[in-house]
Amino acid sequence: MKLDRALGLLREVPDFPKPGVVFRDLTPVLADPDALRAVVDALQDKIDDSTQVIAAIESRGFLLGAALGYGWRYGVVPLRKPGKLPVVADRVSYALEYGEASLELPADAIQPGQRVVVVDDVLATGGTAEAACTLVERAGGIVTGVSVVLEIPALGGRSRLAGREVSALLAV
Amino acid sequence: MKLDRALGLLREVPDFPKPGVVFRDLTPVLADPDALRAVVDALQDKIDDSTQVIAAIESRGFLLGAALGYGWRYGVVPLRKPGKLPVVADRVSYALEYGEASLELPADAIQPGQRVVVVDDVLATGGTAEAACTLVERAGGIVTGVSVVLEIPALGGRSRLAGREVSALLAV
Repeated sequence: MKLDRALGLLREVPDFPKPGVVFRDLTPVLADPDALRAVVDALQDKIDDSTQVIAAIESRGFLLGAALGYGWRYGVVPLRKPGKLPVVADRVSYALEYGEASLELPADAIQPGQRVVVVDDVLATGGTAEAACTLVERAGGIVTGVSVVLEIPALGGRSRLAGREVSALLAV
Repeated sequence: MKLDRALGLLREVPDFPKPGVVFRDLTPVLADPDALRAVVDALQDKIDDSTQVIAAIESRGFLLGAALGYGWRYGVVPLRKPGKLPVVADRVSYALEYGEASLELPADAIQPGQRVVVVDDVLATGGTAEAACTLVERAGGIVTGVSVVLEIPALGGRSRLAGREVSALLAV
C-alpha cells in the first residue's frame, strides 16, 4: 500500500482528549496489515543508518517501535510511565499543560555510545520526546533522531528538540 | 538465537510489584534484536494458521503484538485501559486482587467472523486475558487462541479461559 493511502486511514476524532482538539487516531492504520506495513516502512526509511536501538515511548510508541525493532533488527527499549518498570535506571519529569509527567528508562537498557532513535506516534509540544532524548543521552546514548508518524507544528515540538533530527510522515 | 537462550535473558526481579512476587522482566529480551526475534517467532509458531488479527493487551502486549503484526502481516487491535481510546466500541471490567480494572476495544476494529489471537506478555490469574476474549467475542470475532511468553500456572489463568487455546513459551 502507498503511504498516502495508509495515512488516509487515520481517523479524525473532534474534541478528544479535550474540546477544540482534533485527535488523529492510529487505530484504523494498525488494524490494516498493509497500512501498518506502509507506515512502519516509511518510518524506517527516515531512520539514520547508524541506528542500533529504538527507544519507544509508552504506549503508542510501543506499537511502532516494536514493529521497527522486529522487522529491522533493532533492540527495543521501552520508556515508561512511573511505577511500571521493575528496575529503573533514570527518570525525567516534564511539564504538561496541567501538572507534570515523568518517563523512566529501564536499567541496563542503553549502553554508552549506542545510537538510538526515539519513536512515538505524535510530536506535539515535544515535552515527552525531549524527556526521552534526555534519558537516552544521560545514559550515554547518542540520539540519531526523533521519528513520529504525525507532527503538529503549531505546538512547537521541533524547537524543543533543537539539535536532534526530527522526522514525521505527516504534519497537520 | 535459540529460544532457550532468549528466554534465559528474562530478568528475575524479587518483590515486584509487591513483596513475595518474583517479576520476570522482558526488558533484556526486547533490548537484544536476536532475542526479540526468537521470542516473537516462537509466539508465531504457536498461533493458529487461520488467524487474521492480533488483539494486543496494553502495554507489554503492544510490544509483542505489533512485532507479530508487522512481521507476519496481521492486523493489530490495541485493547486499552479506560480513557485512552478516542472511539470506544465496548468495555469489560474485571476484578483484581484489590479493586477492579477495565479493558476497552476500539471502534470498528474487529469485524464479525474475524479470527483473532489475544497476545500479552504474561498469563497470571487470567482476568485480563478473559476480558480481552470477551471483547473480541462480543464484537463477533472468533478467538483462535491466547498467546503469551510466560504463564504462571499456580495462579490458574488457564482454567478461567476454558474453551480457548492457550499457548505459553515458558511456565514458572
